Parts: sequence; structure tokens; C-alpha cells
Amino acid sequence: MTGREIDNLIKLLARLPGLGPRSARRAVLQMLKKPETLMLPLAKALEDTAHAMTTCHVCGNIDVTDPCHICAGTDRQHDMICVVEEVQDLWALERGSSFKGLYHVLGGTLSPLDGVGPDDLRIDQLVTRVRETGVNEVILATNLTVDGQTTAHYITERLVETGVKVTRLAHGVPVGGELDYLDDGTLTAALRARS
Amino acid sequence: MTGREIDNLIKLLARLPGLGPRSARRAVLQMLKKPETLMLPLAKALEDTAHAMTTCHVCGNIDVTDPCHICAGTDRQHDMICVVEEVQDLWALERGSSFKGLYHVLGGTLSPLDGVGPDDLRIDQLVTRVRETGVNEVILATNLTVDGQTTAHYITERLVETGVKVTRLAHGVPVGGELDYLDDGTLTAALRARS
Repeated sequence: MTGREIDNLIKLLARLPGLGPRSARRAVLQMLKKPETLMLPLAKALEDTAHAMTTCHVCGNIDVTDPCHICAGTDRQHDMICVVEEVQDLWALERGSSFKGLYHVLGGTLSPLDGVGPDDLRIDQLVTRVRETGVNEVILATNLTVDGQTTAHYITERLVETGVKVTRLAHGVPVGGELDYLDDGTLTAALRARS
Repeated sequence: MTGREIDNLIKLLARLPGLGPRSARRAVLQMLKKPETLMLPLAKALEDTAHAMTTCHVCGNIDVTDPCHICAGTDRQHDMICVVEEVQDLWALERGSSFKGLYHVLGGTLSPLDGVGPDDLRIDQLVTRVRETGVNEVILATNLTVDGQTTAHYITERLVETGVKVTRLAHGVPVGGELDYLDDGTLTAALRARS
């Protein structure tokens, strides 16, 4: 249909989440109309990032420096660690920009059925990190799923020996949320934690 | 929030149609997880296409060769030209793969209100092309909008002097379409053209 090179580009773009073949075609057409302002900068940004990207050996974040810009940040509180499941959770918390501490990315949740045990997550590293650096508080921000809560519970047990303070995110009604659209679990949690 | 390079990549991706900031972030995260299989090939495909892309001087198609692979195709019927508004219309017809002739991309429609006159479209080139090459039939496949139909009408007038046969796409009920969901214009056209 289209030239082989353009077809190849469409196929690659269509593999991104959120883009299907149709929107990939639209995106390519739009880029073909302005190759200098969009296509070449995008190619360069992709190549630069692919070559520079690395996983932070301290927290597990993906960045172009190791340690990542959060672990290396002088404006962060180095005595608080927020534990998240995946890098996207870290990014979500950073967007809120109300947390000024450090992070620890587990790389998933405990899931015996899928064969994911404690050794597959960065839990040992977390315990070592807490023990060796002057951390005062660990905030568990795993998801409110069964696996997420199991993982949070397991980490709490493991951290007991370090004597660090362990907290969890509050559960309740989202800001701007309507009660009518909330699931029962959230409503129950919000009622129980009323203040 | 994220490193500067990654932020820049997300911003560039978010400018593509069909991708917002949220889906651009998801796409970047997915790519960061497999830089070798997705990120670098995509960067290369973008760069190659940006450097090689050109507009076919014969038909106006965008391709990496000039004339494009359709105009240069030995398996195409060179005596039929299908006139379309934009490159995406050409691609749509090629996906159907039932048309084996050549194309002519106008680059838009006549639109006096927007200041688009005949000289802004590739209409003169079409008339010259029809006169100088042995074309038997011109199929007008402009959209069924007021501007599209005005343009088709204008081109028909211009082609009278060349004596070429001018046809238009049939209007009617789409294959698989349900009458209930069709607009009145299509229904009227389908009734009028019943066979």
C-alpha cells in the first residue's frame, strides 16, 4: 500500500500501547507533513534516551543517570522512602509533587500463583537500604489489590527488625470523586477511617 | 518529575495525533522496558523515513522514491487516474486494494471562504497529465462534503476539453452498514441509485 519504509514505521508505532494501526497511520501522516519539526527531533530523542537510559541501582527508577535524579537530588528528604510497585507508580507520585522523599521500586508484587517470590522483587535491597542509611520512615504505596496488600504486609514484617517507622497511604474517597460511582471497598475504607 | 531527556521524549510523543500526555507516558515506559527491540528500531525508522521521504512529482503521493512506487509500478493500469483530496485518502483506497490504476492527490479542496482557489490545488497538473499521457478514465474520489463535491464539479468542467471519461464513486449503503444508523443523505442517495 505505502512504501516499504513508511509501512515499517507504521508497524513499529502501532506496537506502542494506546496506538493501533489506524492511529499509527494518522501519526505517521502528520509527521510526514513536518519531518523537520517533529519526525527528526523524535528520532533523536528516542535514540538518545535508548542509549542513555539505565536503572538506578539505589531505587530501581529508570533514568538517564545512575543514581537517578531523585536519589541524587539535594532538595529531597533522604530520610523517607516511598515503596512503589512499578516505575509508573513513582512517576504518578512525582506528578503530584507533594512527596519530597526518595523512592524504592519493587518491580512488581508478590504473586505465588505466578511464581513471583520475595527474591524476584527488590525487597532485600530495601531492607539493606533502610538498615545502612538513616531512614526514619518507609511509606508503603503498593496498590490496593490483594497482591499489593500481601506485598505490603510482607515488607512490614521484614522491616520490623530494623525498627523503622512503616506507614501506608490513606484509603478513602478520591478528591472530586462522587460517592455514587465509588466501589463498596473504597466506601467501607473511607467510613472506617473517618475523622 | 522524570529525567529531562525522558520528559522531552514524552512531550514530543504527546504531540502526535491520538496520543495525549498520559498515553505518551505509557508508551515511553513500555519502550524503556525494551529499548533494543522497540526504541532503537523506531528511532532508526523515523530518521530513515524523514531523510528519504519526498513528494511524487507525478501524483503528489508521499513516498521514499520519486516517482512513487505506485506511479512507477509495472503492475498498475496506467490509463486510469483516481483523484483524491489528501494522501490519507490514497492510503485508504490502497488498503482496499481493489483499485489498480494510478492516483492524483489534489492537496485539499476548493474552499473560497478559506482562500483556497484552483491554483492552490494540483488541478493544472491533473489536466496536463490527462492531456499528455494516454489516460482513458478519471475517477473523482473527493469526499462527499460540499467542498469536495464543488471541487469534483470544477474538475469535471476543466476536463471536458480533454475528452476523457470522468466518473465518480458510487454513493449508497456501506457494506455491513445498518439502515437505522445511516444519515438521511446517504439513504436518499442509496434509494436514488437503486439497481
